[in-house]
Amino acid sequence: MSFLNKKAPPLEVSDWLNTKTPLTLAELKGQVVVVHTFQMLCPGCVMHGTQQAKTIYENFAGKDVQVIGLHTVFEHHEVMDKKALEVFIHEFKIPFPVAIDKPSKSGTIPMTMEKYQLRGTPSMLIIDKAGSLVLSHFGQINDMQIGAIIGQLLMADAPR
Amino acid sequence: MSFLNKKAPPLEVSDWLNTKTPLTLAELKGQVVVVHTFQMLCPGCVMHGTQQAKTIYENFAGKDVQVIGLHTVFEHHEVMDKKALEVFIHEFKIPFPVAIDKPSKSGTIPMTMEKYQLRGTPSMLIIDKAGSLVLSHFGQINDMQIGAIIGQLLMADAPR
Amino acid sequence: MSFLNKKAPPLEVSDWLNTKTPLTLAELKGQVVVVHTFQMLCPGCVMHGTQQAKTIYENFAGKDVQVIGLHTVFEHHEVMDKKALEVFIHEFKIPFPVAIDKPSKSGTIPMTMEKYQLRGTPSMLIIDKAGSLVLSHFGQINDMQIGAIIGQLLMADAPR
Amino acid sequence: MSFLNKKAPPLEVSDWLNTKTPLTLAELKGQVVVVHTFQMLCPGCVMHGTQQAKTIYENFAGKDVQVIGLHTVFEHHEVMDKKALEVFIHEFKIPFPVAIDKPSKSGTIPMTMEKYQLRGTPSMLIIDKAGSLVLSHFGQINDMQIGAIIGQLLMADAPR
Repeated sequence: MSFLNKKAPPLEVSDWLNTKTPLTLAELKGQVVVVHTFQMLCPGCVMHGTQQAKTIYENFAGKDVQVIGLHTVFEHHEVMDKKALEVFIHEFKIPFPVAIDKPSKSGTIPMTMEKYQLRGTPSMLIIDKAGSLVLSHFGQINDMQIGAIIGQLLMADAPR
Repeated sequence: MSFLNKKAPPLEVSDWLNTKTPLTLAELKGQVVVVHTFQMLCPGCVMHGTQQAKTIYENFAGKDVQVIGLHTVFEHHEVMDKKALEVFIHEFKIPFPVAIDKPSKSGTIPMTMEKYQLRGTPSMLIIDKAGSLVLSHFGQINDMQIGAIIGQLLMADAPR
Repeated sequence: MSFLNKKAPPLEVSDWLNTKTPLTLAELKGQVVVVHTFQMLCPGCVMHGTQQAKTIYENFAGKDVQVIGLHTVFEHHEVMDKKALEVFIHEFKIPFPVAIDKPSKSGTIPMTMEKYQLRGTPSMLIIDKAGSLVLSHFGQINDMQIGAIIGQLLMADAPR
Repeated sequence: MSFLNKKAPPLEVSDWLNTKTPLTLAELKGQVVVVHTFQMLCPGCVMHGTQQAKTIYENFAGKDVQVIGLHTVFEHHEVMDKKALEVFIHEFKIPFPVAIDKPSKSGTIPMTMEKYQLRGTPSMLIIDKAGSLVLSHFGQINDMQIGAIIGQLLMADAPR
């Protein structure tokens, strides 16, 4: 787990699914933002990370917490395209907005993943109300810790 | 759960993955055959059925039990094609042969699924040493029951 | 779940186990206090509540959170006495102090349980840094919610 | 796991609970007998073994399988006496007969535990229809394996 406490860079997104309006971190200031980065064919995502992101959504709905899925495809790009992701979102009943990380022009790692220097999927990013990256965690992390971090961030004053 | 006790019809297969040689029920006589029918983007398959099929494989390896995955795609065909299935098999570390159920010429339900009148995915088929269908079960079923059925079938004499 | 937000009454304790010095809520001011009330032969306690209390202890060790077990025996008193509880604490590797709720002179329900009007075991009490009862919950409650409540309470200023 | 394949010695029992009539292995010939040996304050028993024994009972009720609990107390005898065990059976809703292993005159290990040379609790004994000990397993064992063993034993002819 690494606590970075620096301003979270903007998400680079090629497409938004499961939402009528695109989201930006800038506009989400004043809310705690949880970004679940995943690949739809990554077992650790499907069986743990994505379920946990749904639990976060359920526990903090209506409480100044925005959950976002970020599909950071860095392998097998051809079978994890937008169409496939739409089916995944439908079948797995994902209740929160999902962004597609913008493909890189020069490599296999998409742009947000690169910028945040994520080590793989699933990774969880938590951004405080002021827009600082508080947590960037690769792999599993227990529900109680997640709850504690979000709980603490909710208590901080919103930025003016 | 329905116990049918009739001769299991041949599997209609368009392609075999994860095996060097195609399998046929006819050639598997003398072994207990477990067919895990699934779709790679079906949550109940990915999170339960496929894991259970792996557990069957691990518990009965080398004991006259053949586990087969059968990809019975009846919806979202375009994103659950052979290429995507190959990635799924690789990422989820499926250790047993996987057959692709032959698409129907006239409808969305593939041919083996139609012939066996399966209600959806996951479904588990268990075929005894003599080639009779002993179990066709849609949905979840507990590990102990599965163990008991296979254990009983292993004790039966192999057909001549 | 009931949020009471009133001053938590003192614990009525006949004995302390697993600690060198007795604790009082008064002296714990400035810390978040989690009281896991249980009976050592209550299945919902042994299989869920007590495990969760251990998880709270592990996640918040050294962070202004005091976990306390409170053995609130209201049935089968003769087999859940101090000696039996000592074995339970040893065998189940309980890492936090455990208090024995003081038996009532007139009834089967012990004094703290009566005073807090608990409905059964397990019940979880959470008391904020200022000594107010924030949560009194009978039965199961998920880890993420517990984490969020404790996280929020940790952010509040300690009382002078 | 050790497969012994010798005649199972008689259970040495000081008391039977949860049954109107005492049982003997001799009289149970023709049935598969599963003996779950446990101590009521052993965490591995309470959280896994005893639950699994209940699952065996539920899966094989009415199918020539007799599940028996055997309380083999080898430590903390004073708090795991008959009275305490009665409460445990009631609270944990144990549905099968429970025997109390006869205390040794000379040591802490009770007589059946000694005779079967069990290494600790929980241990599972499985005895075939002819009265031979087929499995003596200390610790956890997965449900599918248990199912397979019982399934196989059920298929064997009953002894005359």
